[in-house]
Amino acid sequence: MPSISFKGKKMPESPIRKLVPFAENAKKRGIKVFHLNIGQPDIKTPDCALEAIKNNTVEVLSYSRSEGSEEYRQKIANYYAKNNINVTANEIIVTTGGSEALLFAMGSITDPGDEIIIPEPFYANYNGFSTASSITVVPVISKIEDNFALPPIEEFEKLITPKTKAILICNPGNPTGYLYSKEEIQKLAKIVKKHDIFLIADEVYREFVYDNAQHQSVLNDFGLENHAIIIDSVSKRYSMCGARIGCLVSKNKDVIATALKFAQARLSPPTFAQIASEAALETPKSYFDEVIVEYKDRRDTLISQLNKVEGVKVATPKGAFYCVVELPVDDADKFAQWLLEEYNLNNQTIMVAPAAGFYSTQGFGINQVRIAYVLKKEDLIKSVNILAEALKKYNQN
Amino acid sequence: MPSISFKGKKMPESPIRKLVPFAENAKKRGIKVFHLNIGQPDIKTPDCALEAIKNNTVEVLSYSRSEGSEEYRQKIANYYAKNNINVTANEIIVTTGGSEALLFAMGSITDPGDEIIIPEPFYANYNGFSTASSITVVPVISKIEDNFALPPIEEFEKLITPKTKAILICNPGNPTGYLYSKEEIQKLAKIVKKHDIFLIADEVYREFVYDNAQHQSVLNDFGLENHAIIIDSVSKRYSMCGARIGCLVSKNKDVIATALKFAQARLSPPTFAQIASEAALETPKSYFDEVIVEYKDRRDTLISQLNKVEGVKVATPKGAFYCVVELPVDDADKFAQWLLEEYNLNNQTIMVAPAAGFYSTQGFGINQVRIAYVLKKEDLIKSVNILAEALKKYNQN
Repeated sequence: MPSISFKGKKMPESPIRKLVPFAENAKKRGIKVFHLNIGQPDIKTPDCALEAIKNNTVEVLSYSRSEGSEEYRQKIANYYAKNNINVTANEIIVTTGGSEALLFAMGSITDPGDEIIIPEPFYANYNGFSTASSITVVPVISKIEDNFALPPIEEFEKLITPKTKAILICNPGNPTGYLYSKEEIQKLAKIVKKHDIFLIADEVYREFVYDNAQHQSVLNDFGLENHAIIIDSVSKRYSMCGARIGCLVSKNKDVIATALKFAQARLSPPTFAQIASEAALETPKSYFDEVIVEYKDRRDTLISQLNKVEGVKVATPKGAFYCVVELPVDDADKFAQWLLEEYNLNNQTIMVAPAAGFYSTQGFGINQVRIAYVLKKEDLIKSVNILAEALKKYNQN
Repeated sequence: MPSISFKGKKMPESPIRKLVPFAENAKKRGIKVFHLNIGQPDIKTPDCALEAIKNNTVEVLSYSRSEGSEEYRQKIANYYAKNNINVTANEIIVTTGGSEALLFAMGSITDPGDEIIIPEPFYANYNGFSTASSITVVPVISKIEDNFALPPIEEFEKLITPKTKAILICNPGNPTGYLYSKEEIQKLAKIVKKHDIFLIADEVYREFVYDNAQHQSVLNDFGLENHAIIIDSVSKRYSMCGARIGCLVSKNKDVIATALKFAQARLSPPTFAQIASEAALETPKSYFDEVIVEYKDRRDTLISQLNKVEGVKVATPKGAFYCVVELPVDDADKFAQWLLEEYNLNNQTIMVAPAAGFYSTQGFGINQVRIAYVLKKEDLIKSVNILAEALKKYNQN
């Protein structure tokens, strides 16, 4: 039989999805599973987006432009202007989700064997995209004790080699919920300019910030016109994960010209989803106000409940809708599987994402899980109660 | 300024799209441009697909399964069964267009520096996907004099090295329109088994075969269970290029397990487009019968008209909706640009795709263009007339 590539063998399995078969079996046994494992919001997609799809007048579902339609990109530029990000339509390439924007960014600035520095824990699929691009993730540890703040900038500096092509951050962070401060972005700006490398910022959770904090985009006033690449997506902003529409944004003309060649090779982003995403930009502010209140409430509930559980440590997220939780167990992977395979509390259990997959350093995060607070408050309370009881039982054995 | 990757610099510009600005300028000057350059059919998308989108009941546009929904994959398996391709739902991974299926296939079976043998001329974006995957296309020349039939199998054998991971064919061919015979697929089957490499077949034009010919899939009875990978797409079949839904099919379990990891990293294919594509499988046979009659008629018209033009050589396509045309010009690229920039016949001109981009060997195809017969018969007649008059004028200079 012909052989699979080394790269293919090295591709990580999704830490979020690998427990799915156990969850499915639990459901077959009549167990209700609360899904804390995946960032799939339960929030309704804005009506304007759904209506635009129902009222579409497409007769021939044709390719769109490779970089996304002119009108849509113009409207995205207007959206950015409201966020103090001054970009033109020509500095935006519409992609098939934030995922493809990451692949285009990596393809445009790295060759096989190159390195990208990422504070860990980080969004697990950065591992997958790096492996697919044959590049190496060089992690810098951020700590739960520090709320996952930016590690000392000297830690980055130590790791920069001629192979380093970029620093990649997720802000606010998945899985940490950490929101980088202006000072932290300034430090990153200084170091990427000093070493003339790129700063890629995954800002798909831009709107999800709490406690009146202000999101700092790498394309705000940091002088990063040549160095910054924004990864963006409609998935979380409008609860449209299934649209698969995102974009890559840069004021660096070489980056845009190169990413466009990757975009042309795959022809175009999905047309129906672009129609929905363009319409979604008309979502009233009240929608976001309600969503943010809801998430803040969920966060406060989740964190206060978790803090009551003995042996549990949790950082307080300032953005996004995740938190990393340290559990009094040896191996969170086994515990997560046990929750689905062997445990139930009144026929209910929870599914969490083992956090080891969010680290690139072997052995890190093995007693941590990521919890997504994408469920109603009462379900979050029930879920933490299940967790607390489960931990008692698990640790008796 | 930080530097673009070597890979990014090497990424080819789309030969189909690079003339677009000239076409746009021509239109601004009031010139009507007949688009023979791109495989964007003018055929209406089946009503059942469009209706399914209008009647969708999505409230939260959530991720689908990474490999595509169970129901949709089951229906795709049923479709294949009707084409004597016996595969189960688990041997299918739904992708974002045939493009992504190609990327997943290359990622699953190649590492940087590996080689894939492709008969040229070939679909131009194979160059782009190969560059993106850091692998090398090794071309085998097929000739217009032979109607672009499979080159002698010894030519392939000569090129196989330890780095060769697959032979890739497009059947029926874009840009050649050539349909491989049973004997030709048998020869390919024999050689890939002998050297234990993969045979990837891009079969997106499966239905577009004329003159009562029979399409031969690599997963028909050729004993290629371990070696064959099919690339497929709804784009042309249902005139749904903008859906961006395709699939990768293989009976090789390692290939599917590996491709699934690539699929998981990018989360899921687009949800709306999957709804449309699932519904499209209900398209009545009469739709295809009409479409095939229409394309055959267009092909016959185009080829007979082209054969009347002095100095023009054209192979007769047996499938798909393209043909490669050799023109009495030195540089088809310049000629194609001249057609848009300087020429018009009663305020009309044509846009063609210079064929050099469909070759990987430097200098090949420079006097050839690809013509897509995706326009009405009367427009094809007008287009060939414009070509004939333009050639006279061009060669006077």
